[in-house]
Amino acid sequence: MTVAEDELSLVFSALADPTRRAILERLARGDATVRELAEPFEMTQQAVSKHLKVLERARLITRTRSAQSRPCALDPERLDAATGWIARHRRMWADRHDRLDQHLAALRQAGETP
Amino acid sequence: MTVAEDELSLVFSALADPTRRAILERLARGDATVRELAEPFEMTQQAVSKHLKVLERARLITRTRSAQSRPCALDPERLDAATGWIARHRRMWADRHDRLDQHLAALRQAGETP
Repeated sequence: MTVAEDELSLVFSALADPTRRAILERLARGDATVRELAEPFEMTQQAVSKHLKVLERARLITRTRSAQSRPCALDPERLDAATGWIARHRRMWADRHDRLDQHLAALRQAGETP
Repeated sequence: MTVAEDELSLVFSALADPTRRAILERLARGDATVRELAEPFEMTQQAVSKHLKVLERARLITRTRSAQSRPCALDPERLDAATGWIARHRRMWADRHDRLDQHLAALRQAGETP
């Protein structure tokens, strides 16, 4: 549980940067090498590599170990974990407000029929 | 767009901490004051206040200005923005893999019926 919590922090932290999100957007469309990723962002390959390390540590991407160009691929499992966490608490909040609405509706009805 | 992107960075950055996520979990169940939030976390009210400032800056929570106890409430709009971003790219990735599967199935079928 503690490990999972920390992993979630790594994921959210990796997503908290516009360049890293842009890299993930690019990888959602297809695998790419560091060189291919660097071009549209007008960044050095070194700068892209730094961002890729953060994404790899959060396990948001995987990289082929064997090939020399080491293409990067999106790994959606951790994205699902992040959405899962948000969705659970979002739903809890929505349920609470539904209950509040029902309660207010019941109060209104009780007021109308004394 | 740039503003929205930065706002998204604030949201993900605020979520990248287990204590702040625990505070949001607590607020998903109901509004609470700083004192009420501090108790279960065994933290000083000062430490909780620091986390609340980060959550408030990311607009994940709102605080009543008038009341002296200033209860905190979850504001789900930004959570939706964060889930929205993830869901869009998750879907793009899934679509790409569906097309790949279809392509492979077509290749297999072509191989079976020469």
